[in-house]
Amino acid sequence: MKPKFARESLSISTHHVLPNDTNNLQNLFGGRLLEWMDVIAAVSAHRHCRRVVVTATVNHVAFHSPIKYASIVTLEAKVSRAFTSSMEIFIDVFVEDPVTGEKEKSNEAIYTFVAVDQNGSPLPVPPVVPETEEEQKRFDSALRRRQLALILAGKMNPEDATELRRLFISE
Amino acid sequence: MKPKFARESLSISTHHVLPNDTNNLQNLFGGRLLEWMDVIAAVSAHRHCRRVVVTATVNHVAFHSPIKYASIVTLEAKVSRAFTSSMEIFIDVFVEDPVTGEKEKSNEAIYTFVAVDQNGSPLPVPPVVPETEEEQKRFDSALRRRQLALILAGKMNPEDATELRRLFISE
Amino acid sequence: MKPKFARESLSISTHHVLPNDTNNLQNLFGGRLLEWMDVIAAVSAHRHCRRVVVTATVNHVAFHSPIKYASIVTLEAKVSRAFTSSMEIFIDVFVEDPVTGEKEKSNEAIYTFVAVDQNGSPLPVPPVVPETEEEQKRFDSALRRRQLALILAGKMNPEDATELRRLFISE
Amino acid sequence: MKPKFARESLSISTHHVLPNDTNNLQNLFGGRLLEWMDVIAAVSAHRHCRRVVVTATVNHVAFHSPIKYASIVTLEAKVSRAFTSSMEIFIDVFVEDPVTGEKEKSNEAIYTFVAVDQNGSPLPVPPVVPETEEEQKRFDSALRRRQLALILAGKMNPEDATELRRLFISE
Amino acid sequence: MKPKFARESLSISTHHVLPNDTNNLQNLFGGRLLEWMDVIAAVSAHRHCRRVVVTATVNHVAFHSPIKYASIVTLEAKVSRAFTSSMEIFIDVFVEDPVTGEKEKSNEAIYTFVAVDQNGSPLPVPPVVPETEEEQKRFDSALRRRQLALILAGKMNPEDATELRRLFISE
Amino acid sequence: MKPKFARESLSISTHHVLPNDTNNLQNLFGGRLLEWMDVIAAVSAHRHCRRVVVTATVNHVAFHSPIKYASIVTLEAKVSRAFTSSMEIFIDVFVEDPVTGEKEKSNEAIYTFVAVDQNGSPLPVPPVVPETEEEQKRFDSALRRRQLALILAGKMNPEDATELRRLFISE
Repeated sequence: MKPKFARESLSISTHHVLPNDTNNLQNLFGGRLLEWMDVIAAVSAHRHCRRVVVTATVNHVAFHSPIKYASIVTLEAKVSRAFTSSMEIFIDVFVEDPVTGEKEKSNEAIYTFVAVDQNGSPLPVPPVVPETEEEQKRFDSALRRRQLALILAGKMNPEDATELRRLFISE
Repeated sequence: MKPKFARESLSISTHHVLPNDTNNLQNLFGGRLLEWMDVIAAVSAHRHCRRVVVTATVNHVAFHSPIKYASIVTLEAKVSRAFTSSMEIFIDVFVEDPVTGEKEKSNEAIYTFVAVDQNGSPLPVPPVVPETEEEQKRFDSALRRRQLALILAGKMNPEDATELRRLFISE
Repeated sequence: MKPKFARESLSISTHHVLPNDTNNLQNLFGGRLLEWMDVIAAVSAHRHCRRVVVTATVNHVAFHSPIKYASIVTLEAKVSRAFTSSMEIFIDVFVEDPVTGEKEKSNEAIYTFVAVDQNGSPLPVPPVVPETEEEQKRFDSALRRRQLALILAGKMNPEDATELRRLFISE
Repeated sequence: MKPKFARESLSISTHHVLPNDTNNLQNLFGGRLLEWMDVIAAVSAHRHCRRVVVTATVNHVAFHSPIKYASIVTLEAKVSRAFTSSMEIFIDVFVEDPVTGEKEKSNEAIYTFVAVDQNGSPLPVPPVVPETEEEQKRFDSALRRRQLALILAGKMNPEDATELRRLFISE
Repeated sequence: MKPKFARESLSISTHHVLPNDTNNLQNLFGGRLLEWMDVIAAVSAHRHCRRVVVTATVNHVAFHSPIKYASIVTLEAKVSRAFTSSMEIFIDVFVEDPVTGEKEKSNEAIYTFVAVDQNGSPLPVPPVVPETEEEQKRFDSALRRRQLALILAGKMNPEDATELRRLFISE
Repeated sequence: MKPKFARESLSISTHHVLPNDTNNLQNLFGGRLLEWMDVIAAVSAHRHCRRVVVTATVNHVAFHSPIKYASIVTLEAKVSRAFTSSMEIFIDVFVEDPVTGEKEKSNEAIYTFVAVDQNGSPLPVPPVVPETEEEQKRFDSALRRRQLALILAGKMNPEDATELRRLFISE
C-alpha cells in the first residue's frame, strides 16, 4: 500500500463557544471538546485511508486551562502513525486571544481510529511518512503508546513491551 | 473531611440513539458517547463533593463493539477514589437487547474531575469508602493509574512510580 | 402473557439544565421537561413489553415549583398498570439541592404508551404486578384515570364510569 | 383590566419533521410535539397578557394518528379563557398531505400558563372575549376543565365542582 | 398548469430567541436567521408547487437592526413569482415589542427555490397570481432581480437585461 | 490603521453532513449551509479586525450541485476588502469525494460584516492587502458589489455607481 505523508491528513475545524457549550463557570465543558476532537480526528483518519473509520480508543487527554465562553477554538488533527488497520491521530487545540489574536495551545489529545468495511471488519491502511521534526517525534513515540494500550487492554504481556519498559528500567 | 461511600455518587443516565448520533454505519459515533460519559461523570463527581467540578483528564477509553441506531444505552458513573481535590470516576456503559432486554456491558471509561471554587482554584474533596469487591478493586488500582497520569504529564519521575513499576519489574 | 413486576420497568435519566433549556427567568422551560419525560417514559414502557411503543396520551401534568438553571434533574419512570395493549407510566421528577444534595420531588406526570407492530397496530402487553405500597396505590387509581380519559375522548358514557362516579356521588 | 379578543393571541408555528424528531417507526415522536406545543402556547399566552409566562399544567393530550417523517406540521395556539392570573390555551395541530396539500387536524392539546413577575409571583391577566362559535365553546368548557384540575390537585372538593358534576349526575 | 394565488403559499413561523441563537452582544446571530428563513421559504415554495423543492439562490439580504435575546420573531414567507421551475420567495421578518406587542419589520429577504424530481431534475411549477398591491409590486420587480442573477451567474449578457438596464440608462 | 494581509483572516471549518442536516433527497439543506457560512465568515471578519462583528448583508449565493449526506464539507473564508467599518468576506465551499479524496468546489458566497462596539455602533477596521491573483481580483470587484448593494438598499443613485454602470454601458 502506497505510504502517505502525515500532512496529507491535516484537518482543521474552528468553533465558537456558545452558551450551551459551557459549564456553570462559563467555560467550555469537557464533554463538548471531546466530541469536537472525535469528529475532526475522524475526518483526518478518513483522509489518510479513504475508508469508513470508527473510534477505537481515546488515549490520555488532559484539560489544563479552561476555555472561556465566546472563545474561538481551532482544532488541528493529523495522523501520526498507522499500524495495519489502525491509525493514531494527534489533535492540537488552540484558543485565540480575542484582542491580540495570539493563538495559544490549550490541549492535546490522541485518539485511535480503525478503518472498517460495511460489516465493521478491519481494513488495511497506508503507512505514514513523517516529515517535520514534530511529526517524527510523534511517529516514534506512537509505538510506546501502542504497547501501553495493549497492556491496559490485557492483550500484551508487560515483559514484551520493550519500548515501554525503557521508561522504567535503565538496562 | 467526612468520607463518603462510593455508592453515594452513583449516577445513571439513559439515552436512546437517534439518527444524529450515528456514523455512516448507523452506529453510535464515538464522540457522542464521550460527551454523554463526561456529563454523567460530572454529575457523579458533583454528588461526591457537592462542588462545581471540571473535567481534568480522560484516561484510556476503548470502544469494543458498535452500538446500533435506536439502542437504549445506560451509563452508570461512580467515584472510585479521591486524591486531595481530584476524583477518579468509572463509567460503565450498558446496551440492552431490544427483544430479550438483556443488558450487555459495551464500554468502560475512566475520567478524572477536580472540584473548584469560583476562580477555578482546586478545593479539597472527601475520601471515598469502597464497599463492594468491585469498588475495592477500582479503589486499589486508582493509585497505579494516577502514577501513570503523572508520568505522562511529566509531573512524576518513573523511578518514583512504585505501584506502576511492579507491572514491569518483578522485584 | 407472563406478568412482570413494576420495578422491572424502572428507568432513570439524569439531566443538567443548560442555558438553552431555560426561559427568560433562567428556569427550565416546561416544554423541555415534557420532552425529557416522554423519552424516559418510552424507555420504561419498552422495558415492560419489549416492543416498539408510541405515546398515546399525556395526562394532567402540573408544574409546581420552577427548576433553576444548572440544576441536576433526575427522572424516574415506572409502569403503573397495563390494559391490553396500553401502559400507564408514572414519571417522578427530582431536583437536587447543589449544596446539601437533598433530593426534592418537583413534579409528577402520567403518560400512556401503546405497544405497536411495524404497521402501527396495537400488540398485547404483559400485566403489571405491583409490590410496594406506592406501586399498589398507583395501580389501583389507574382504572379511574382510564375511565376519565375514555370519557374525555368521548369513548365512554359517564354513566358507566363506575370508579370515577364515586368521586362525585356518595352512593 | 381591558379584555382582549381570543384571536389577538393566535400564534402559528410551522415545522418540518427531521430525522432526529422521529422514533423507530419514522414517525414524529410524542415528546418533540409536546415541546413544540409548549413553545407556541407560551407565545400565545404572552401575546394575550404581555408578561413573562410559565407553563402551569398540561391537560389531557391524545396522540391519535402518527405524523410521518418529512411532514409539514402547523401548530395554531389561541387563549381560550383567562382566570385571574392563569390562561388556558388550545393548540390545534395540522398535518399537510404533501401531494394534495390538504390540511388534516391530527392533534389537539390544552395547556395552562401563568403570568409572573421577576420573582415568579402571579400577575393578573386580561379576560378573554370569544367571538367565533368554536372560541365560545372552548370558553364555556374551560370552567369544567378548571374544576377537574383543581380536584385532581386536591384543591377543590368534588362536591363544589358544580359544572363537572353535571357530567355524572342528571339533577 | 393551473395558476395559484400568492396568498395560497403564505407560510408562518414563530421563534423564541434562545441563548444558543445569540452572539456576544446577546443578539440573534445572522446565520441562525438565515437558516430559519430558508426553512420557512422552503415550506412556502412547497405549498405553491406541491413538489420537493431545493434552495437555488439567496438574493441580497440585509440585517438592519439587531434582534435581542428572548425576542419573539415571526417569519412570513410567500411566493412572489414563478419562472418555469423556479420560484422566488419573499420572507418578511417581524419582531414584537415584549411590552406593547407592537410588531416591527426587522428584515426582508428573497430566496429562490427549484422544484425537483427524485433525481434532482427540475419540474415545472404553476404561475403565480398576485392580488394585493404589495404582491403585484414584488411580482413586477422579480423579473429585474432574475436578470441580475443571470448576469451575476454569467448566464445572461448585460445587453439583454432590458429590465435592469433601465435602472442605469434613461433611454 | 495598519493594513493586514488577506491571508491573515483565512478561517477554515470542516463539517460532516449528519442526518439532521439533510432534506428529503438526503442532501444537505440550504439553510444549514447558510448558517455554517455565516459562522466561519464571522470568525474570518473577527480575525481581520479583532472586534465583535455582526452580519450586515448576504450577497447573492447560488447552490449549484447538491451535497450528499455523509459528505465532508470544508469552508474557507477570507476577507476580500474592507470599507471603513465593513468587511466583505468570500466563503469557498469544498466537498471531498469519499473514495478519491478529490476536493471539488461546490459553492461560493459573499457576506458582509460590520465591526461594532458594545452599543452596536460601527468601529473602523484595517484595510486589506491582497497578495495572490485571486485575492486581487476579489478586491477589485468588491467595489462594484458595494455599489450594487447601496443601490438595492436605496442609499446610492444608480447614476453615481460608476463601477457598476460599465457592466451595462460601453462608454
